[in-house]
Amino acid sequence: MPPSPIRKLVPFAEKAKAQGIKVHHLNIGQPDIETPAEVMNAVKNADIKVLAYSHSAGNESYRKKLVEYYSKNGIDINAEQIIITAGGSEAIVFGMIACLDAGDEVIIPEPFYANYNGFAVMAGIKIVPVTSSIENGFALPPIPEFEKLITPKTKAILICNPNNPTGYLYSKAEMEQLEDICLRKQLFLFSDEAYREFCYEGEYTSALHLKKIQEQVILMDTISKRYSACGARIGAFVTKNREVYLAALKLAQARLSPPGLAQILGEAAVDLPDDYFNEPKAAYLSRRNLLVNRLNKMEGVFCPTPGGAFYVIAKLPIDDGDRFCQWLLESFSYKGQTVMLAPASGFYETKGLGKHEVRLAYVINNDDINAAMDCLEEALKVYPGRTI
Amino acid sequence: MPPSPIRKLVPFAEKAKAQGIKVHHLNIGQPDIETPAEVMNAVKNADIKVLAYSHSAGNESYRKKLVEYYSKNGIDINAEQIIITAGGSEAIVFGMIACLDAGDEVIIPEPFYANYNGFAVMAGIKIVPVTSSIENGFALPPIPEFEKLITPKTKAILICNPNNPTGYLYSKAEMEQLEDICLRKQLFLFSDEAYREFCYEGEYTSALHLKKIQEQVILMDTISKRYSACGARIGAFVTKNREVYLAALKLAQARLSPPGLAQILGEAAVDLPDDYFNEPKAAYLSRRNLLVNRLNKMEGVFCPTPGGAFYVIAKLPIDDGDRFCQWLLESFSYKGQTVMLAPASGFYETKGLGKHEVRLAYVINNDDINAAMDCLEEALKVYPGRTI
Repeated sequence: MPPSPIRKLVPFAEKAKAQGIKVHHLNIGQPDIETPAEVMNAVKNADIKVLAYSHSAGNESYRKKLVEYYSKNGIDINAEQIIITAGGSEAIVFGMIACLDAGDEVIIPEPFYANYNGFAVMAGIKIVPVTSSIENGFALPPIPEFEKLITPKTKAILICNPNNPTGYLYSKAEMEQLEDICLRKQLFLFSDEAYREFCYEGEYTSALHLKKIQEQVILMDTISKRYSACGARIGAFVTKNREVYLAALKLAQARLSPPGLAQILGEAAVDLPDDYFNEPKAAYLSRRNLLVNRLNKMEGVFCPTPGGAFYVIAKLPIDDGDRFCQWLLESFSYKGQTVMLAPASGFYETKGLGKHEVRLAYVINNDDINAAMDCLEEALKVYPGRTI
Repeated sequence: MPPSPIRKLVPFAEKAKAQGIKVHHLNIGQPDIETPAEVMNAVKNADIKVLAYSHSAGNESYRKKLVEYYSKNGIDINAEQIIITAGGSEAIVFGMIACLDAGDEVIIPEPFYANYNGFAVMAGIKIVPVTSSIENGFALPPIPEFEKLITPKTKAILICNPNNPTGYLYSKAEMEQLEDICLRKQLFLFSDEAYREFCYEGEYTSALHLKKIQEQVILMDTISKRYSACGARIGAFVTKNREVYLAALKLAQARLSPPGLAQILGEAAVDLPDDYFNEPKAAYLSRRNLLVNRLNKMEGVFCPTPGGAFYVIAKLPIDDGDRFCQWLLESFSYKGQTVMLAPASGFYETKGLGKHEVRLAYVINNDDINAAMDCLEEALKVYPGRTI
């Protein structure tokens, strides 16, 4: 199991900070947006005498609330099709274990969220990558590329939509292509929809909008990004497939119940006003535009404009992203500042890919993004491993 | 993966309640003791703007506090030997995955906590039971019985001390026997110490008190029972073995962080006054004495007096525990009341064992225990499958 590509740089960032250098964090998806006070207050105001186990699938009141939430998003499910999980992470692990046997394979477009590797190790399954490319903005690879990879052990395709780490928002046409192949090949479609709320142009298509494969879809969800509540560790495993649901419920029963206090927070969040998302969404959009604009103005840099989430991947004129990101922390500063990025190599399963790419998370404000881009621009001028 | 032996009776309990019958719950380990107001208030008073990911190993401040807690219990560790987990459940899964490969074996005295089965399925490992017996109060089986079961695939012994479901408290001599065999056979000792605080006579020996196998012990802990905070989902994975720690940390990093709000609760709990446990412990002791006394007065019933936790296993003059427990809910009531018990068969791995035994959790007050025992006494008189 590989170490997290993001976390391995942490000691270098700590050293830089110890030397008094300000480090702009574009390396992790921890938003600076405040968790809504209303939902924090729901926890504070709860009158709990005994903090008891909840239902293993999560409090029924919360699951019923989530039915409302999903309905607003055009997803028609009921409370017995939801299991509340310890973050999106647990929903993904439940899906992998419930749907696949040890040694089975899941196809995932790369670059992909690096922690899928850890979950696959836990589930004893194999990830088979299908490569998407920065040249066309990390669009869905052509379906024949998927077909080539299908073996008798292939049981599922996993997508993250909008995508982490690319920010790519799959179009309705692309989602229908996935629907078609899952139908023809009888595959599960695992859909990690952690960033559903953050789509900036184009139409959002949930895997549960696909009418022909309703029983094959496992939706893996979380409130971490939606309400800027990453630390709550509340997610959801959603499926209309009763057999899969009951298998996942057994896993849920083994670990007794999802986090209790944070379920109260999640339930209250469903009652936030419908316009709640306008403000964070506008902030992210403005940051995305600034970041992409600044990046593409730098010589030798290419960054597509992705349609969702809060990440971009940029191609830099450098020899090696891992080396460059470490150098930024270890050997570089500009006006007492530097920037921490995530080398993209860790998001690729295929060895050698992503060597010239980095992921940037726009989870800091525009002033800080500008300062971070000033650093990057200067860094690229003086980095010894510059290639062009 | 078998369904939970406790949960499968739930529909029958719901039906009984719908018919107006009061059901006394002795079937699950959900204490009625109030969660200390001080620790709930710590969450209410926390000033959190962004509920962010914590460190994957848990907040450093909490881990440092836990070092104090363990020190008070004669366990000498540091903050870099602790990973905060989503309940004791996650600590157990981390231990199984970090120390064993798929197909490896762990020896566990049976009857054992049924959810170990689910965790073993998740980890892809095999549980090998060594049978303990009600006749000697579920003492540790003789070490030669363990030795007979050791194969090249055996990597660990797992104990729960004090024990769920038997309540048995392993003596210092027994713990040293385990130390000896783990040393000789180079096995990990997994020690689930969820009930550490609830020992009523005899001396408590933690696996981390064993000086010769410090690097082989994985302590799996939780605050669920300690502070009656089952719903918090906060546990701890503790080991002095650096290699195992780093392997578990990778698993922890994949799921990002343990529940955030509840870590505040856990941290505050360490500062409860030292005499905090006196009251719940006295309550449990009084309940244990009452329950064991009532049980042994019934004709044909045998119940050893266990030294810890809040469970007993009793042998009843019945044909089949599963049938009897269902019958209690489906076909019996006494003064409008009945009692829900856990059939012991689900705690045994060896087929056919525990057929005449039930587990009772003394998590209700003495009046209710008396009422529940009145029901049981009457039920045994009229149960059609009575054997003697």
